[in-house]
Amino acid sequence: MKPNLEKPHIKILVIVPVLAGFWEELTKKELSKAARADTKIDVVGLKKGPVSIECEYDEVFAALELIEKVKEAERNGYDAVLIGCFTDPCIYAAKEAVKIPVVAPAEASMAISSILGEKFSVILPKIIGRGAYGIVKRQAKTYGFESKLASVRSIKIHVLDFIKMREELKAAILEEAKKAIDLDGADTIILGCGGMIGIAKEVQETIKIPVVDPIMAALKFAEMVVDMKISHSKIAYPTPPPKERKT
Amino acid sequence: MKPNLEKPHIKILVIVPVLAGFWEELTKKELSKAARADTKIDVVGLKKGPVSIECEYDEVFAALELIEKVKEAERNGYDAVLIGCFTDPCIYAAKEAVKIPVVAPAEASMAISSILGEKFSVILPKIIGRGAYGIVKRQAKTYGFESKLASVRSIKIHVLDFIKMREELKAAILEEAKKAIDLDGADTIILGCGGMIGIAKEVQETIKIPVVDPIMAALKFAEMVVDMKISHSKIAYPTPPPKERKT
Amino acid sequence: MKPNLEKPHIKILVIVPVLAGFWEELTKKELSKAARADTKIDVVGLKKGPVSIECEYDEVFAALELIEKVKEAERNGYDAVLIGCFTDPCIYAAKEAVKIPVVAPAEASMAISSILGEKFSVILPKIIGRGAYGIVKRQAKTYGFESKLASVRSIKIHVLDFIKMREELKAAILEEAKKAIDLDGADTIILGCGGMIGIAKEVQETIKIPVVDPIMAALKFAEMVVDMKISHSKIAYPTPPPKERKT
Amino acid sequence: MKPNLEKPHIKILVIVPVLAGFWEELTKKELSKAARADTKIDVVGLKKGPVSIECEYDEVFAALELIEKVKEAERNGYDAVLIGCFTDPCIYAAKEAVKIPVVAPAEASMAISSILGEKFSVILPKIIGRGAYGIVKRQAKTYGFESKLASVRSIKIHVLDFIKMREELKAAILEEAKKAIDLDGADTIILGCGGMIGIAKEVQETIKIPVVDPIMAALKFAEMVVDMKISHSKIAYPTPPPKERKT
Amino acid sequence: MKPNLEKPHIKILVIVPVLAGFWEELTKKELSKAARADTKIDVVGLKKGPVSIECEYDEVFAALELIEKVKEAERNGYDAVLIGCFTDPCIYAAKEAVKIPVVAPAEASMAISSILGEKFSVILPKIIGRGAYGIVKRQAKTYGFESKLASVRSIKIHVLDFIKMREELKAAILEEAKKAIDLDGADTIILGCGGMIGIAKEVQETIKIPVVDPIMAALKFAEMVVDMKISHSKIAYPTPPPKERKT
Amino acid sequence: MKPNLEKPHIKILVIVPVLAGFWEELTKKELSKAARADTKIDVVGLKKGPVSIECEYDEVFAALELIEKVKEAERNGYDAVLIGCFTDPCIYAAKEAVKIPVVAPAEASMAISSILGEKFSVILPKIIGRGAYGIVKRQAKTYGFESKLASVRSIKIHVLDFIKMREELKAAILEEAKKAIDLDGADTIILGCGGMIGIAKEVQETIKIPVVDPIMAALKFAEMVVDMKISHSKIAYPTPPPKERKT
Repeated sequence: MKPNLEKPHIKILVIVPVLAGFWEELTKKELSKAARADTKIDVVGLKKGPVSIECEYDEVFAALELIEKVKEAERNGYDAVLIGCFTDPCIYAAKEAVKIPVVAPAEASMAISSILGEKFSVILPKIIGRGAYGIVKRQAKTYGFESKLASVRSIKIHVLDFIKMREELKAAILEEAKKAIDLDGADTIILGCGGMIGIAKEVQETIKIPVVDPIMAALKFAEMVVDMKISHSKIAYPTPPPKERKT
Repeated sequence: MKPNLEKPHIKILVIVPVLAGFWEELTKKELSKAARADTKIDVVGLKKGPVSIECEYDEVFAALELIEKVKEAERNGYDAVLIGCFTDPCIYAAKEAVKIPVVAPAEASMAISSILGEKFSVILPKIIGRGAYGIVKRQAKTYGFESKLASVRSIKIHVLDFIKMREELKAAILEEAKKAIDLDGADTIILGCGGMIGIAKEVQETIKIPVVDPIMAALKFAEMVVDMKISHSKIAYPTPPPKERKT
Repeated sequence: MKPNLEKPHIKILVIVPVLAGFWEELTKKELSKAARADTKIDVVGLKKGPVSIECEYDEVFAALELIEKVKEAERNGYDAVLIGCFTDPCIYAAKEAVKIPVVAPAEASMAISSILGEKFSVILPKIIGRGAYGIVKRQAKTYGFESKLASVRSIKIHVLDFIKMREELKAAILEEAKKAIDLDGADTIILGCGGMIGIAKEVQETIKIPVVDPIMAALKFAEMVVDMKISHSKIAYPTPPPKERKT
Repeated sequence: MKPNLEKPHIKILVIVPVLAGFWEELTKKELSKAARADTKIDVVGLKKGPVSIECEYDEVFAALELIEKVKEAERNGYDAVLIGCFTDPCIYAAKEAVKIPVVAPAEASMAISSILGEKFSVILPKIIGRGAYGIVKRQAKTYGFESKLASVRSIKIHVLDFIKMREELKAAILEEAKKAIDLDGADTIILGCGGMIGIAKEVQETIKIPVVDPIMAALKFAEMVVDMKISHSKIAYPTPPPKERKT
Repeated sequence: MKPNLEKPHIKILVIVPVLAGFWEELTKKELSKAARADTKIDVVGLKKGPVSIECEYDEVFAALELIEKVKEAERNGYDAVLIGCFTDPCIYAAKEAVKIPVVAPAEASMAISSILGEKFSVILPKIIGRGAYGIVKRQAKTYGFESKLASVRSIKIHVLDFIKMREELKAAILEEAKKAIDLDGADTIILGCGGMIGIAKEVQETIKIPVVDPIMAALKFAEMVVDMKISHSKIAYPTPPPKERKT
Repeated sequence: MKPNLEKPHIKILVIVPVLAGFWEELTKKELSKAARADTKIDVVGLKKGPVSIECEYDEVFAALELIEKVKEAERNGYDAVLIGCFTDPCIYAAKEAVKIPVVAPAEASMAISSILGEKFSVILPKIIGRGAYGIVKRQAKTYGFESKLASVRSIKIHVLDFIKMREELKAAILEEAKKAIDLDGADTIILGCGGMIGIAKEVQETIKIPVVDPIMAALKFAEMVVDMKISHSKIAYPTPPPKERKT
């Protein structure tokens, strides 16, 4: 179980479930800083899919290639696969499809946050109507963290502007995080978007309460379960039988 | 608002989200018996997709064409669209995609059953592992009916054998329904599969408690909300903005 | 099951559980607009009872004649009975008393609203203290819709002034509905009084989210379950045995 | 606040909400043993009403005179009123009607039991169908004790046979109590009927866990709140305004 | 069961789980006013422990001597023991340790308040960070009263200043109680500190809703269960076996 | 952030909160196998305390020295502290006392298990009465994992016999784990005792669902949060102010 630094101890495939070319570089750079020395990380995007995931409709366009890549990860010997979007798209389908651990940002960051404090809030990018509030609340219900969710809030910056508006992004997250603390009773903050990667640390230094980066949380969670030689329950998420599935 | 029987008052598109050619005829026949005289029902299957939906993995293969057909239904002037599978695949994506009512069997049958008694049980086809138990329990949590769910049970007959094993199917449902009543405290039964269409009435006559056919429930729910000139909340499920979604 | 328009397909008795002479005409007029062509509606009030129901104390005075009329409805061949007050007075006693469907406005409008959005708010008439807030919250708990209830709000107009203050009533409902959306997170509105009949449509046109008229919801729910040949569970609500009950 | 034994410190009216002549004597005898020396207890039945309360339908027939007697109790200077039936009939209407404490057996025994252990079970008389199970479960939900309720069970002896079958009654309660402990995880037992008065002590001596007599619990709860000079919240249960209520 | 005023009917030991010398006199004086004539109350503090309990860390320093005194109470023939601090320190350990009733202020006042209204708020002394909010919310969860808790609020006065700032204390409690009613929907108020003893009555007279003094609630609850010859369930809280426990 | 293997990257103090001399060696051996190469683990027991923790009463005897050792860990430069008993004794007091992460077996293993499946069961050593069932259920409630808990079960072997009865222990755990799966619907198993360390792997290989070793889970959770530079929220668990706390 001791790491051999010559070849990686743990290999994790991070799938960013949107069109390739935008997020991979930043994600790889930030995750490499966070990963253990003996973890090898590969980051891939999609050839077919949406340019971003802001609603359940967008997930539909990511689903097929995402699930294909999850299966490839297992075939190619990865130890775990990380779905790199806070909506956790196809999380149960992916757990059915493979035996290696499938980890997703919302479930991992909620599980970690649930024991860091009494109540967490989730800060989202600019959203459409109230749609994404509902998505996060349904996640909290489905995953069993409903009693821990203080609130869901959103900033005014669109996810596709995150890379070029880094400073505005930090300021906007900080502002909503403070409201979550003062108005909603939150004592822990979850950043609710993969595109917010690399920002948690600075926000945490300012507000002095835990700020969880969801992609980093998922990465560390993946390293943890791989080390523990544990994966999701195959009684709960059984392998689909072969059958005709025309694509 | 008075029906004009010359042309249909209500037009409903029923999408059976599996490969076309197996279920449409039976579904149309049974729903036509149940529909009002002034309701016109069209039933379609998929050209691409799984041969059946038994797990969340199967849903991935149905998603793209299903959501396309939901949008077509709105463009073609249907008053409502019915997703004809008890897993309610893509239900939130579909509600985002269109403004006409989108009705699905699990949510409709749970909403109706919730006021017919104190506790309902869902009877599923033969399932893989315990996967589909989890799907139904997550549905009950997400839709808010968790406190009404007595149990989820399954029979030993595979969904693709339902049409040719009609009598065995009835007997098997009856057997599990009795267990649900006696062992789990259920006072209302929901048939948990679109393929069980047309069987509720006979089971109900035997066990003397309400037995809800989920596809029929969805149809009648659709007629009801169309009549009420009401649809799902577009604040909750806002229309996705145009963006690149490569397929 | 096809409607024969010569004689009604469905006969529903609407009991307005307050002293007769005030609400029957308006209720009949509005429900007739909403009903299907093949539904016959009769609306009756009470000879003994309160002039309005604003608290559980008032329900006590309506109970005896209300339950008597429920039983009469069954004896007289009605297909369903509708208790026309949002407090759903004697709803369980009524379900015990008869086998035909008993439908009530709060349970029907909550069941329908539960799948139109993520959270609904109820708008009440002018209330005494906070008594009626508690009544609605207890209903939501008892019926199992607690997780769907965003808030209960009340306007400043007394129920007995509704008929003569139609425009003020609309304006007041609109104002509270907007607060429910903006402050309480509601995405669906339930009008919490039988006297608000006929107003939902206009409010809905203004606020662009579903507004549910509870009496109309109960009517359409009744038509639906009659069509489905389904009624409440007699294991859950068994018929009372004969015994001495002195009146 | 010291009791003056010459005239009673506390006067409590116990209303047994069924036809007078059957339960008053036993109830008075048992409650007098349990009451403090400075508590005066009067027990009355109804002139109009059901011979027993086994379902919500029966409550309808008790309601009017019961609520009248509750108001009389206040007018006649009683310090508290106790509604002597485990269905707690008209409990909210009664709390609205008067300012003196209204105490009822189910709410009092559940409140007491909630801190005696982790889970309580309720043992009912012979019931009709499963109706009374639902009543008790709805009480637990409405009162907020749902998470403490292990189970509801019933014996085979009818409530009207309790007085003449005292030994059989004890044996039957004991049998179900043991099942509640062994099969349902109960660690505390509530006797779920006013007619079971005077039996708790013996059952408790046998099974060695707390057994709560609901009428005695209500009596002691009433003494407690009177001593504390506290009553139910009149914001929650406001006094009904004068209006026409024809009887 | 009749009280013999020559020797006390009920003997209750009140343990104030902080360093002796500060609270005993006031506590004894106020409880003696509230107790029945036939109840004898002894109040003791600790020789080792914290000067006040404001967090779970403080409880650690009170635990050993507190639990020792609980066992002594039983050995010395007390009928019940009352742990005189709203954090209910060591409540489950104490229930394990003895067979006589152990009553604590938070559990008793929540149990009583749960049937006085629909929602209660707890008013705390000045707190550190938000720590004590979490303590009270965890109590409500653990005891099963979560659905009844409207809010937890705190005043700006430190508990050790309560005795010398009696008037300011009342004013501060009153101010927060009003906010709890108006902003949080509370209809019942629990004073969340043993040091607030003797103040409830005046606050109640001003705000006209029930205000529960937690130490008095615990005393009256203790008298009640002793009278009922009932104690906590020893299946739920079994007596610890002898073993080495080095101190 | 890259580990420097010359000196440890992470230093964790494991406090086994019972009398020293029994568990340290086994715990150190097993944890060293599970830890990363760059993690240094020290394991200590208590000089004063109970020989084992089987109930909340036992925790009282561990509390003072345990909390002292937690503070020492922080002063001595440990990166995290692990409380090595499944009852998670003094978990909130410890979080208040220090700023470095405090991790405990029940909360860590429940957080991890909550996303491995739909329902987990906890297998305990031989217990006294049903006391420890209540402890685990209260933990699940307090930590927010109540909806994920399938059941709590116990084997017949006493914790102090675990080391010498290794094979019997495995067999007994396996037997109860199978019952948890078949009878209680569990799809994930948590070993509910620190003394069960080193056994999960073999059980998992037999039953083919995740089996979580709670001490190892806590260790890996500690490594994870240290890597993430995150700790518990100090708003939620604020540092106790200096004051007199006599010991």
